[in-house]
Amino acid sequence: MSVITVLGAGFMGAAVTFPLAAGGHEVRLWGTWLDDPLLEACRRGPHPRLHLSLPPAVRLFGADELEPALAGADALFFGISSEGFVPVLERLLPCPTFRPDLPIFSLTKGFIPWRGAALRAGECAEAMHSERFPGRPLRWASIGGPVKAVELAQGVPTASVYALADRSLESFLPSFRTPLYRVHAGSDLVGLELCATLKNAYAILLGICDGLFGNAEGRLYDNLKAFLLAKALEEMARIVEAAGGQARTAFDLPGAGDLYVTAQSGRNRRYGERVGRGEDPATAYERMCAGGEIAEGYPAVRLGSQYLKPRYPGWEERLPVFSTLHRVLAGGSPCGAELDSLVLRYP
Amino acid sequence: MSVITVLGAGFMGAAVTFPLAAGGHEVRLWGTWLDDPLLEACRRGPHPRLHLSLPPAVRLFGADELEPALAGADALFFGISSEGFVPVLERLLPCPTFRPDLPIFSLTKGFIPWRGAALRAGECAEAMHSERFPGRPLRWASIGGPVKAVELAQGVPTASVYALADRSLESFLPSFRTPLYRVHAGSDLVGLELCATLKNAYAILLGICDGLFGNAEGRLYDNLKAFLLAKALEEMARIVEAAGGQARTAFDLPGAGDLYVTAQSGRNRRYGERVGRGEDPATAYERMCAGGEIAEGYPAVRLGSQYLKPRYPGWEERLPVFSTLHRVLAGGSPCGAELDSLVLRYP
Repeated sequence: MSVITVLGAGFMGAAVTFPLAAGGHEVRLWGTWLDDPLLEACRRGPHPRLHLSLPPAVRLFGADELEPALAGADALFFGISSEGFVPVLERLLPCPTFRPDLPIFSLTKGFIPWRGAALRAGECAEAMHSERFPGRPLRWASIGGPVKAVELAQGVPTASVYALADRSLESFLPSFRTPLYRVHAGSDLVGLELCATLKNAYAILLGICDGLFGNAEGRLYDNLKAFLLAKALEEMARIVEAAGGQARTAFDLPGAGDLYVTAQSGRNRRYGERVGRGEDPATAYERMCAGGEIAEGYPAVRLGSQYLKPRYPGWEERLPVFSTLHRVLAGGSPCGAELDSLVLRYP
Repeated sequence: MSVITVLGAGFMGAAVTFPLAAGGHEVRLWGTWLDDPLLEACRRGPHPRLHLSLPPAVRLFGADELEPALAGADALFFGISSEGFVPVLERLLPCPTFRPDLPIFSLTKGFIPWRGAALRAGECAEAMHSERFPGRPLRWASIGGPVKAVELAQGVPTASVYALADRSLESFLPSFRTPLYRVHAGSDLVGLELCATLKNAYAILLGICDGLFGNAEGRLYDNLKAFLLAKALEEMARIVEAAGGQARTAFDLPGAGDLYVTAQSGRNRRYGERVGRGEDPATAYERMCAGGEIAEGYPAVRLGSQYLKPRYPGWEERLPVFSTLHRVLAGGSPCGAELDSLVLRYP
């Protein structure tokens, strides 16, 4: 049994307390400055987004209680959105109870904007950690795979891959595993973080199809969506390989599995549906944020172009699905015409 | 413009006449001895399964009109179920108007039972053709990728891969392509035929999940289905590689794309739902056949074990998803217990 502090009381942070508590750990849930209403609700009843009461053993810590939340912790789970990533690390690293060798298991999915660049989560954490603690290695793992938070909390059988930048973290994994939460060890941090980010972007396109065609005349457009899904997987694999990761990661749980579950339902898919129905991409994103729903795929597309530019020369031409998304979401290009010309890009 | 004869007037045979007619070909549709009621209906109105009227230029040929249907044809499309595969070839090859070098584009998805063995479609056709026409090469291609027949007929943008055993057939492909029917040339016949067959089998398992859990308490079990889908893709890739094909085929349109579309809807998924709800696997298959719905995944699982036995030693242990399906569908093992133990097979 370990003391595990989960940072972030949103969907995924709250959900992961369920298997951790079931595994017998002492679980602490710290909410960011945006999470106070969530914690307040959890003290009286169900979590407002999961619609489930947290396991009774989970102790709650408000935004100003980071120091006690970390005291004596054996490991952290980092359940923070890509937008909150840097601000939370900026509070975490200088916190007196943070040890530089504290293992961190990250649930963040998205590119991180940092000093004008777009980085993978692990890259950004590494850069920030090494500035604060020069010469001290960061003990980091990122978690991917097909996980809808609410189903993880409900106890639906779920598989995750923990890509370990530091192999010594593998000793934790058996204690995170339960009969319903299957924890795979992985070594491809680059591939996993890219897949976790890109699948949100690509899932938007399947939502756009539904928003655009709206089951007109009983047509589900499954042939088109499956076509785009297969081409998205192929692009993810190429991006992963170009960044030094393994193509196989894109075809396994972190890529194909997670893209499937995200395309079935979820915020990014719903966001795509709104755009497909004609809503302005930026406005739709902001409106969903205002309702507490962050469609991570929207910033992932915008930051993705920044990430790809120095790493994937000619990406606009060579990644037709991603660049279609980029033209629609960042350039305001009309979905219908873009989809038509995307289809014609293939033989 | 060519003369194209489509053999089989069921879902896929009838559907492919739409892009072929749109491409300006002279299209003939021959129905097997089981298809007479379908052709009869098509003469008066919409195709009874597609619920669409065939393109006016398509000429219909009854079961006893194979000879005129083939006369002067430039190519065949073989839209026959795996069960009808051998009986139709047994009529086709000796037909006086059949030329041994007539190009055949096959839409069959399934293992073919032949002389006590289970073969890929291309293997079986090759064996039968070389017995009848020794020394004359078979000009064969198999078609895969994510295609729901009804959407192909409706004009939903659709992608197919034509895996060419004979590269000279590539010259036909531009004439099959339309703005809405994207025709990719492929070279991995082994991989494509295995994916086309196996995806029907694996899709059954996702149906079983829905039948078994039935959206109980609002849980969709998407995490579990995505987990199984990713592991199914991995197994498909391993089976393809062991048979001499390319793993990438399993991760592209013929594997990932087709498994996605089949898992979304379709006969194999519905068959799985019935089994998940407790219906006996053999009875459910027969009842669906009686209603004109052939769930190809059921024979694919039974014949699959026969196909794998000599080619994949230890398949029961090394392919846990496929062997779970086999125990449920061929061995009568209970779905719930099998799924529980499948999940525990993973880390």
